[in-house]
Amino acid sequence: MTRAGKVYLIGAGPGDPDLLTLRAVRALRQSDLILIDHLINPEVLAHARPGVEIRSVGKRSGRHSLPQAEINRLLIEAARGGRVVARLKGGDPFVFGRGGEEAEALVAAGIAWEVVPGISAGIAATAYAGIPVLHRARASSVAFVSGHPGCDPGKVALEADTLVVFMCGSTIVRIARTLLARGRPRWMPVALICSGTTARQLVYTGALGELARLDSLDIPTPVIAVVGEVAALAAKLRWFGPPPLPLRAAPRREPARTAS
Amino acid sequence: MTRAGKVYLIGAGPGDPDLLTLRAVRALRQSDLILIDHLINPEVLAHARPGVEIRSVGKRSGRHSLPQAEINRLLIEAARGGRVVARLKGGDPFVFGRGGEEAEALVAAGIAWEVVPGISAGIAATAYAGIPVLHRARASSVAFVSGHPGCDPGKVALEADTLVVFMCGSTIVRIARTLLARGRPRWMPVALICSGTTARQLVYTGALGELARLDSLDIPTPVIAVVGEVAALAAKLRWFGPPPLPLRAAPRREPARTAS
Repeated sequence: MTRAGKVYLIGAGPGDPDLLTLRAVRALRQSDLILIDHLINPEVLAHARPGVEIRSVGKRSGRHSLPQAEINRLLIEAARGGRVVARLKGGDPFVFGRGGEEAEALVAAGIAWEVVPGISAGIAATAYAGIPVLHRARASSVAFVSGHPGCDPGKVALEADTLVVFMCGSTIVRIARTLLARGRPRWMPVALICSGTTARQLVYTGALGELARLDSLDIPTPVIAVVGEVAALAAKLRWFGPPPLPLRAAPRREPARTAS
Repeated sequence: MTRAGKVYLIGAGPGDPDLLTLRAVRALRQSDLILIDHLINPEVLAHARPGVEIRSVGKRSGRHSLPQAEINRLLIEAARGGRVVARLKGGDPFVFGRGGEEAEALVAAGIAWEVVPGISAGIAATAYAGIPVLHRARASSVAFVSGHPGCDPGKVALEADTLVVFMCGSTIVRIARTLLARGRPRWMPVALICSGTTARQLVYTGALGELARLDSLDIPTPVIAVVGEVAALAAKLRWFGPPPLPLRAAPRREPARTAS
């Protein structure tokens, strides 16, 4: 008799491998197959059993990721074959992680599964940058929105006191203009956080109007932007990484590269 | 010479002690004094060194919490005395945790400090209830707002596809009416999650219109509410705890108790 397989949808956090939860460590130790996204810090895999199969299904430079349907098929087939599968995602599986779609596919296929929440970059990259996304005196609501090029920037103009825009390296200048057009003030503090929680973390701070006047940025991904009064705390509350740089120091994209 | 003290502002997650991060475990092991909030699962303290001083500074039934200024003073004095202090909070320190205020006080006093992000109930209690707060087909933005009685419910009527309302046991009916008045449809799915991620987790699901018609609720705290299409996935994606109950099964507050 084959033992029953199972899929763990695991959040690995935003980069710092010590932000893994005890539950994630336990699930990794139990797994026979690990499917990883491209942003996963390889140090996280130190918790896997020796000899376990590890497969990358995420995008890397110049290579496309597996289509979602193919990932779902891999998860289902491995679990049907009796394997315990770790589907390891950056951040949290249900915060821009497509974990919901995978869970629905697993339920439809009758596969046992669990979700193991991870620390979202929206909370951790901001905290490592010295920015509390909520603050009794400065922000009583926070919204997480996608800045992915496929998303409508008009949809990010939310009323929340703090706006955290994920995956916005190539779109944040356009989004800043949209926010100004929707009435956010030019003086509103903003912060851009590159490679948050890692040794490569860089933070740029300035004002929304200043960001909107740039042509475009060419800063290392992944990038998360924070728009709101709390972004101004980055310098004061810095405890990790180098001090924030002014937005005017952020590298501009060369016109030739924009065309590529 | 006294060694230098330090304060760790640590998120302990929403209840399940296995949602503690490796970094939080390490910080707890290093600490000489632990200041805890009332919602902390005592199992988390298993990671503390034997004999370490543990002090509760949070609200419990019938007892008030220490004023924030007093907590700040305790943190600063202990660190000045050379102690490593863990300030242990439910969820994440910067998500309705007042960690920002404590960090500002520590910076002003010249104390070394770090923040250790925790899994927010807004992400974990929802995930344990089978609700992905974001979903490619159903929600591209999520907002976290406070439902604390002191907050203005008019401020929670955000545009986000998914709205997660924290600490809303006594206010969610009023908030539901506000959301309807602001144009959210009556059919909009809602879920109330009590004691999420713990053995006592209970989930109630229904429609916004149905919630707004109730007089009031008397459900176990802490309560988090989810308003948005994704709330309807709770039954389909259940993997933890008992199946969701219909909202009409939620206990009503007795008129006599309302007056007290």
